[in-house]
Amino acid sequence: MDADARFAALNLELPPAPKPVGVYKPLVLVGTLAYLSGHGPLLADKSLITGKVGTDLNLQQAKLAARQTGLSLLATIKSQLGSLSRVSRVVKVLGMVNAGSDFHEHPEVINGASELFAEVWGPDAGVGARSAVGMGSLPANIAVEIEMIVELTG
Amino acid sequence: MDADARFAALNLELPPAPKPVGVYKPLVLVGTLAYLSGHGPLLADKSLITGKVGTDLNLQQAKLAARQTGLSLLATIKSQLGSLSRVSRVVKVLGMVNAGSDFHEHPEVINGASELFAEVWGPDAGVGARSAVGMGSLPANIAVEIEMIVELTG
Amino acid sequence: MDADARFAALNLELPPAPKPVGVYKPLVLVGTLAYLSGHGPLLADKSLITGKVGTDLNLQQAKLAARQTGLSLLATIKSQLGSLSRVSRVVKVLGMVNAGSDFHEHPEVINGASELFAEVWGPDAGVGARSAVGMGSLPANIAVEIEMIVELTG
Repeated sequence: MDADARFAALNLELPPAPKPVGVYKPLVLVGTLAYLSGHGPLLADKSLITGKVGTDLNLQQAKLAARQTGLSLLATIKSQLGSLSRVSRVVKVLGMVNAGSDFHEHPEVINGASELFAEVWGPDAGVGARSAVGMGSLPANIAVEIEMIVELTG
Repeated sequence: MDADARFAALNLELPPAPKPVGVYKPLVLVGTLAYLSGHGPLLADKSLITGKVGTDLNLQQAKLAARQTGLSLLATIKSQLGSLSRVSRVVKVLGMVNAGSDFHEHPEVINGASELFAEVWGPDAGVGARSAVGMGSLPANIAVEIEMIVELTG
Repeated sequence: MDADARFAALNLELPPAPKPVGVYKPLVLVGTLAYLSGHGPLLADKSLITGKVGTDLNLQQAKLAARQTGLSLLATIKSQLGSLSRVSRVVKVLGMVNAGSDFHEHPEVINGASELFAEVWGPDAGVGARSAVGMGSLPANIAVEIEMIVELTG
């Protein structure tokens, strides 16, 4: 199975590819790399999952927000490149959690997106380098924001 | 008009190219990419725009701080590469806003830099992928810090 | 002297190469670049230096935490690539300090790692572009987290 078939087998719904809310592009190609802008947890009805992780959202809710952010990134890849199978590997993920200063479980939260990518692109190619960290604040108070770099098939 | 001419037509003043205040280089070349270090809102008199966005600075003041940070990045490009026209496209911008935990308008702030880049390099090449996020704190309490990756002409 | 010899001359101990605590790889190769995941200040006994910089740790302690984070990155490079001499230059460092909202000395903290890299790879090749910023929170409350991109010998 290729990545599109593996995604279909998950029975998940892609949100609409998010439109930029500022002066930026969702994805920029340079050579064989695609740089994806910071994405948020966009739902199918175009609303966003918001709130501070650790107070407004518990760990499980935050991990689902990260998974939804991953779906939003997949929607942009599909929209911009035509197919999830254009990605040959995940290179680097920056997972940013909107959390209070005493929150400590950022890796567990961002795993919500990373596990999705591993399901779609496989446990080797779908898993990249990563940082998972806590931001003081995020746009529109979204719970999670993730940017990533992926390598494309030649 | 090339990028230098477009910049000249804006009648803006470049600050002096900032000197590193730590063990780093303002710009590093790798292949056709230039990685620019995090820059702050440096003014012509070498002072910095400081303060928390949302409390010490309002949205309009913060957007001007982002524009000034963009000018500081242009000063480094001009100083290190000789000409703004060496840049063929903006690849990726990370815009970091020094804000309280309830600030939500990071994209509007960072647009101050992104709109400048679009004026200098054009609405396609001057607009890259981007994340605009809120930091808990920034060096010297600067209001905005921006790092970026640009692609150079061959 | 090559980088391995220069490191040996420093009489420092490498911690064990850190094992991922989430769904990510410590290092991913793309062309001649290696992307290193966010690393923390891992000690030889596998404990981590934790706490808020500016309250739990003073500047000197935080700089040592950054140096230890640098050692952790070196351990991953040695473990994944076999030798520190595989690195031809440091391209980009993102130094993230776990600090309160009124902390201002992030560059001085992250210099703890950057000075180590300059000792190992030399004052030109060992010094890259960099941002040094303050995070609202970090995993397991580590004091410092650093990710980096390095270029490899062909």
